[in-house]
Amino acid sequence: MQETNLELFPVAEPTVDIVPGRKLAAKAAALYAAPHDHFETRAVAELQLGFDGIAGDFHGGTTRRSGGREPWYPRGTEMRNERQLSLVAADELAIVAQRMGLEEIKPEWIGANLVIEGVPQLSMLPAGSLLFFKGGVTLKVDGQNKPCRVAGQSIAEHVGAADLNATALLFPKEAKRLRGLVAWVEKPGVIRAGEEISVRVPEQWIYRA
Amino acid sequence: MQETNLELFPVAEPTVDIVPGRKLAAKAAALYAAPHDHFETRAVAELQLGFDGIAGDFHGGTTRRSGGREPWYPRGTEMRNERQLSLVAADELAIVAQRMGLEEIKPEWIGANLVIEGVPQLSMLPAGSLLFFKGGVTLKVDGQNKPCRVAGQSIAEHVGAADLNATALLFPKEAKRLRGLVAWVEKPGVIRAGEEISVRVPEQWIYRA
Repeated sequence: MQETNLELFPVAEPTVDIVPGRKLAAKAAALYAAPHDHFETRAVAELQLGFDGIAGDFHGGTTRRSGGREPWYPRGTEMRNERQLSLVAADELAIVAQRMGLEEIKPEWIGANLVIEGVPQLSMLPAGSLLFFKGGVTLKVDGQNKPCRVAGQSIAEHVGAADLNATALLFPKEAKRLRGLVAWVEKPGVIRAGEEISVRVPEQWIYRA
Repeated sequence: MQETNLELFPVAEPTVDIVPGRKLAAKAAALYAAPHDHFETRAVAELQLGFDGIAGDFHGGTTRRSGGREPWYPRGTEMRNERQLSLVAADELAIVAQRMGLEEIKPEWIGANLVIEGVPQLSMLPAGSLLFFKGGVTLKVDGQNKPCRVAGQSIAEHVGAADLNATALLFPKEAKRLRGLVAWVEKPGVIRAGEEISVRVPEQWIYRA
């Protein structure tokens, strides 16, 4: 590590470049929640968050059942729910829409809970990033949201695609690294539409050992 | 992103180097648990893990109270417990001991739960790494464990340091990036001493946007 006293331990500690942590200012431009039995969300003025996610939401819970994103488990395995909330950015969704030949992709169609404004390349924000909402809530980023066919199907239906299946399948392909993030609640409370966010990007490095 | 069709979207998507994910083979060389009211651990033959961590352990729970590691919260704020288990490596502890002028630092003294063998530079393993234990448990790495004075105090007492306070304070300084990882339970079960682990290092990149 660059900041350590390398000459004393030349073998044990190869150098690793540490990129310092930093802060970004952002905003919760729009909020959405899903009924407990639906994937799609609808606009709401506030989100009430507990340690188990959005109260009564489809993706709520402290645990969830594994699916195609966890090929290492038998489907339906109970596991910790690190995907309580879906965060998207309008500019990224616009790129995906353009790639799919669509006018727009609405956050509700793909089950988003928050549209985050002010974070460039939102989907690339590293795991472990903390989002401090002015009202007291903290979300922790688990990682990129992998685009799936369920969201593609919803888009295809909303735009009235001629070939539903073809449009549905386009989404996982074109939305890779542009479909936003999943996050979980580190500190509960209420988020209100328009609320300011301080984003704490953690220290970063590449592990190559 | 290197794998995308850059010429079509030159403005929206700056290039980001993606380091592919990979797997490492490792072993749970030794296991330790703490009584519910103690920081120090003691060797055990197995660890029974629920979604709230080690059954009955000092660091168990789905939530915890914030401390010095979370300067952004008033001390004692209830937050999600992402620090259910402490993972250390023998080679890293040996470096810290050498730096502190000690013969050894035992994992028990600093509240470790697992000694992991076979992962070079364990403390640098990125957030989001998954540890699949052969017996069925999965742990997810939250991040580096920041060395604190409580662990330093415990070391100072165990080695019978002449100046307890000076030795206690040396630890946070010398153990930086060598004190292992904290992790939480993604999938519960039982871990047994000597068990094999498949470590999944996720895709990596540096967010500079």
